Amino acid sequence: MGLDEAAQKPHDRLSAWLAADMEAVNLLIRERMASEHAPRIPQVTAHLVEAGGKRLRPLLTLAAARLCGYEGPYHIHLAATVEFIHTATLLHDDVVDESTQRRGRPTANLLWDNKSSVLVGDYLFARSFQLMTEPGSMRVMRILSNASATIAEGEVLQLTAAQDLATTEAIYLQVVRGKTAALFSAATEVGGVIAGVDEAQVQALFTYGDALGIAFQIVDDLLDYGGTSAVIGKNVGDDFRERKLTLPVIKAVALANAEERAFWERTIARGKQDDGDLEQAMAIMARHGAMAAARADALDWAARAKAALSALPDHPIRDMLADLADYVVARIN
Amino acid sequence: MGLDEAAQKPHDRLSAWLAADMEAVNLLIRERMASEHAPRIPQVTAHLVEAGGKRLRPLLTLAAARLCGYEGPYHIHLAATVEFIHTATLLHDDVVDESTQRRGRPTANLLWDNKSSVLVGDYLFARSFQLMTEPGSMRVMRILSNASATIAEGEVLQLTAAQDLATTEAIYLQVVRGKTAALFSAATEVGGVIAGVDEAQVQALFTYGDALGIAFQIVDDLLDYGGTSAVIGKNVGDDFRERKLTLPVIKAVALANAEERAFWERTIARGKQDDGDLEQAMAIMARHGAMAAARADALDWAARAKAALSALPDHPIRDMLADLADYVVARIN
Repeated sequence: MGLDEAAQKPHDRLSAWLAADMEAVNLLIRERMASEHAPRIPQVTAHLVEAGGKRLRPLLTLAAARLCGYEGPYHIHLAATVEFIHTATLLHDDVVDESTQRRGRPTANLLWDNKSSVLVGDYLFARSFQLMTEPGSMRVMRILSNASATIAEGEVLQLTAAQDLATTEAIYLQVVRGKTAALFSAATEVGGVIAGVDEAQVQALFTYGDALGIAFQIVDDLLDYGGTSAVIGKNVGDDFRERKLTLPVIKAVALANAEERAFWERTIARGKQDDGDLEQAMAIMARHGAMAAARADALDWAARAKAALSALPDHPIRDMLADLADYVVARIN
Repeated sequence: MGLDEAAQKPHDRLSAWLAADMEAVNLLIRERMASEHAPRIPQVTAHLVEAGGKRLRPLLTLAAARLCGYEGPYHIHLAATVEFIHTATLLHDDVVDESTQRRGRPTANLLWDNKSSVLVGDYLFARSFQLMTEPGSMRVMRILSNASATIAEGEVLQLTAAQDLATTEAIYLQVVRGKTAALFSAATEVGGVIAGVDEAQVQALFTYGDALGIAFQIVDDLLDYGGTSAVIGKNVGDDFRERKLTLPVIKAVALANAEERAFWERTIARGKQDDGDLEQAMAIMARHGAMAAARADALDWAARAKAALSALPDHPIRDMLADLADYVVARIN
């Protein structure tokens, strides 16, 4: 590996290694997001799909399949399936969260309307289910349909857990497994399943995706308090304004003195927020080391992801997946 | 058949004939709408599922399977699948249409919020995909996932066709196939597929469901102008207020004189509606015989549905399905 390659982000190295596969995925996505009768469908989908998302989830499927020696055509279908499920959930999330910005651009619900986002999301879900039937593997379909159910369940749980100061780290973990890790782990697991590897390796791929997804989401939740709008392409403090109980808040609430408790009661539980409250929330979290503790948890999940890789073949892709686990957390260095 | 039975509606006779199967479907629905982690899911679902809907779609699956001699367990799963898809689309429709009443009760989006309706709908879609994998038939999964895509596409098409006076009867038919007939035809078709009948009979079941669904939706659209709130459990004139181009309106627009054209331009295209406009719309449609012409179309589709049944076994269920096709249109006698 030359110096140039070593300097690249692991995600970019995976993309370069899997470039031909990824091009096939992009072609298939464009083909399947078409609609003969309803031109609004490809308009809305293209706005999101072509906004320069990282395509991390389909890359994971391609990487898992290739790492396991798969030579057939269907990792392309499964990677496109995973991206369609992800895109559908983004469309619906932006409606639910009333978001106005995604990947640094106006959201579809803002550019068109909530109706279009709901219905085009439904279309992409249905398209994903059509795609996942094509490899003809019952097990693949069970994994991906189970992941879809876990995602929706996690989103509903997040909805009801929001504003509730009694939310524990265990509930947070369930929400995170639903909203993020379920699709990561399904993405890696199906790659191994179509490659026909043994159960220990399928389980290792699941564990890698699950742990990577949890680390990724913890970091995303940290960035929502610590990043800048230019870097993360999304409004800082969104989670605070939406009164979401993310990991650093949960940790700070657990350690709160009476005055801090009253602050959280007012801003999160009752939703009475004023100018300066976001800064105050960040100061309280810093005082209790809540951000650092959450980052330590993310590092622990990244370590678990890397450990799982030992069951898989020695291969350049495996090294990139290990680096990816480190990089996911390094985003908040 | 006794006099009592003859006097019953065909739908009730089907329900009685298939009562044991239907009970198993209801049990499975209750079991699968549960959620260990998110109690809001069964709350929202139960509100809709237990509101006394007709369960017409799962009945069609059970009827098709039994008519074709199926003796296995999986017609129950497929009937529940079909009802879950239907329930998910109702939840999302009520968000998209901003409806406040469904089956004579407040809608879920009113009782909870739009967020819950979107996410619980997603959960039910995912649950339906889990259920449809259980019989282990690739063909069944393709039929049902294709139906889901057609439904979503029809809804998006309806969204963009609303308010557009250039909407033709051909576009209306596409919308209706999407929003209603696709699930009816999938419901009947999969019943034949799991029973293992020949292609001609599978096709006949598809055609019956497709034509029945189209007749059903045309009548529903007529009732939106002609029924009463107490009878149809839904606000009369909803489609007019939502500026939907349904069949009687399309027929009246095609025959409009200059003054009537101006009326449709104002009320449907521009959405400027005043008191009395609904009555005026109904008077214009009556003047051109638009309601009668749409009813004639519905009768024609019902006749096609009945004709398709001739390819299927002579059986009491077949007679009830024939009567059902008549009854669907007789609702507006």
